[in-house]
Amino acid sequence: MILAEGFSGDPHYGKTARGVLRYRRDDVVALLDSTRAAETQDGLPVVGRPEEALPLAPTHALVGVATQGGRFPPVWRELLKSCIASGLSIESGLHEFLTDDPELVALAREHGVELVDLRRPPDDLDVPSGANLDVRAHIVLTVGSDCAIGKMTVALELDREARRRGIASQFVPTGQTGIAIAGWGIAVDAVVSDFLAGATERLVVEGVRRGGEVLFVEGQGSLVHPAYSGVTLGLVHGSAPHAFLLCHLAGSSEVEGYPGHALPSLAELVELHERIALRARPARVEAIALNTRLLDDREARAAVADAERETGLPADDPVRFGAGKLLDAVLARRGA
Amino acid sequence: MILAEGFSGDPHYGKTARGVLRYRRDDVVALLDSTRAAETQDGLPVVGRPEEALPLAPTHALVGVATQGGRFPPVWRELLKSCIASGLSIESGLHEFLTDDPELVALAREHGVELVDLRRPPDDLDVPSGANLDVRAHIVLTVGSDCAIGKMTVALELDREARRRGIASQFVPTGQTGIAIAGWGIAVDAVVSDFLAGATERLVVEGVRRGGEVLFVEGQGSLVHPAYSGVTLGLVHGSAPHAFLLCHLAGSSEVEGYPGHALPSLAELVELHERIALRARPARVEAIALNTRLLDDREARAAVADAERETGLPADDPVRFGAGKLLDAVLARRGA
Repeated sequence: MILAEGFSGDPHYGKTARGVLRYRRDDVVALLDSTRAAETQDGLPVVGRPEEALPLAPTHALVGVATQGGRFPPVWRELLKSCIASGLSIESGLHEFLTDDPELVALAREHGVELVDLRRPPDDLDVPSGANLDVRAHIVLTVGSDCAIGKMTVALELDREARRRGIASQFVPTGQTGIAIAGWGIAVDAVVSDFLAGATERLVVEGVRRGGEVLFVEGQGSLVHPAYSGVTLGLVHGSAPHAFLLCHLAGSSEVEGYPGHALPSLAELVELHERIALRARPARVEAIALNTRLLDDREARAAVADAERETGLPADDPVRFGAGKLLDAVLARRGA
Repeated sequence: MILAEGFSGDPHYGKTARGVLRYRRDDVVALLDSTRAAETQDGLPVVGRPEEALPLAPTHALVGVATQGGRFPPVWRELLKSCIASGLSIESGLHEFLTDDPELVALAREHGVELVDLRRPPDDLDVPSGANLDVRAHIVLTVGSDCAIGKMTVALELDREARRRGIASQFVPTGQTGIAIAGWGIAVDAVVSDFLAGATERLVVEGVRRGGEVLFVEGQGSLVHPAYSGVTLGLVHGSAPHAFLLCHLAGSSEVEGYPGHALPSLAELVELHERIALRARPARVEAIALNTRLLDDREARAAVADAERETGLPADDPVRFGAGKLLDAVLARRGA
């Protein structure tokens, strides 16, 4: 059951709910939102209280929306307590950890359920050992011009297309929504800075242990983002990709929420990523993934053509037009 | 009193002890090292036990050396307990926090002394607000080709030279040794990745609040370091420098401790930093600070000349030859 209390149209607000509904639909039995009780969404019932979902036999309640400042307001505390009392384990990707809350911890113990903080990093992280350069897989990292433009979605779409072709592919999650979808991973933005690259190295090693011969690593932030660029570069160096896939929201020209911070051109972004790649693992941007959600079909096709002309690279919107072309591009040099 | 138990010649091992001895000599009354009791160093007495230093009236004991894995081995625990029992407050820059140790916390309370973890980040950090672009100061950030090559030392030497000239200069500390020297700051590598840039922004704002019209921000790591590059880029974007001062250990060609990771040329490093600077705050590398400790005087002068020829920028070793030339270079465009 996805807890989506007060689920609004804000694209950031319900990112986890939307991602899980899209990529893990079969594991969802209900949504909870007291403001929309008895409606349906994506063919799923919306319930107003946890008890109403019990006939559908949910095992876990996932906090699917961001609360103000990442904290649990009183209404949420009551909701979580009633989920626990109904025998549901809780998963949360908020900054405030469930497992640091003595009242919730005691209640969960009493009812024999688990509290899982998707953003809580492992406590035995370290700096990279060099294993990232030794893994026997083709590593593709999604990078981008900004946050929240689809780097996770692109990695998931390409992973799905690769599996459809029979390739032993793994999606490598680096943020709370990716972790909620895949069931493993580390939220690298929650890791102490010293261990950013080490945490990412651990993820690519784990991706191979899970059978991946091709890894699609979920990127975070942007090299040109004034707040999150450090996370991005730690990911770039820690995951040691063979290929970058550059994501961009067609039509955007400024970092969202940071007025005055103009985005470089796609061609400049391509060059910046290739220059900053580890010298011990040179990587090229192999394709451009455009997010064309602000455009109509004709405009979207024009934007794709423009991106190809500007960069000389294959471009596409994998959500709108399919992931095949981008997958071909990022695999072209596999093993080369 | 600096706790330097087992102080060895390893340049990393006693970094904090050496930095404080060099830049805060007047505040040090004794060193503690039971293996060298009754010797002297830098004109200071070396004692074997805390009680022996009490006639010199120390108020604080500073953990000046790195212990294995950043933890307190039993011999260190006993030492810290006897310092506390002698009425000394403790400062430590280790990964393991004193203030997380119930036994030490209880003992400190009993004796009315403080425990200060230099690497513990403030608990109210956030992302940058944009204040870094509004501060009314000329911001100089030391960057470099590798860790532990003198970025802190160069910032301290230039700050000292600027003050000598009557400039309202502030050294802005970003690591435990800098914090031990200056008495304020945030160890940015201990900050959760999400808040790296925000923590650094706070430091430059604080540097101005302390009266700085010129800020020398202590750099960390390197954009090309496979483990710590994320910290470096967060610092670059969060401190929003007007000028970079590029530090390099003359003669080194590989990242220390990471065989196979070749360093780019100085000219490539100059270009990389200028490309990655915020577009909203373009910055140039204004000079090269060479660490020539591996060379004799003649070789050092030749290395400086080579660096100038290669980059077309002023170069010097500010420790060996004085900080004047580099200070002139980084201030040349001040206010431009």
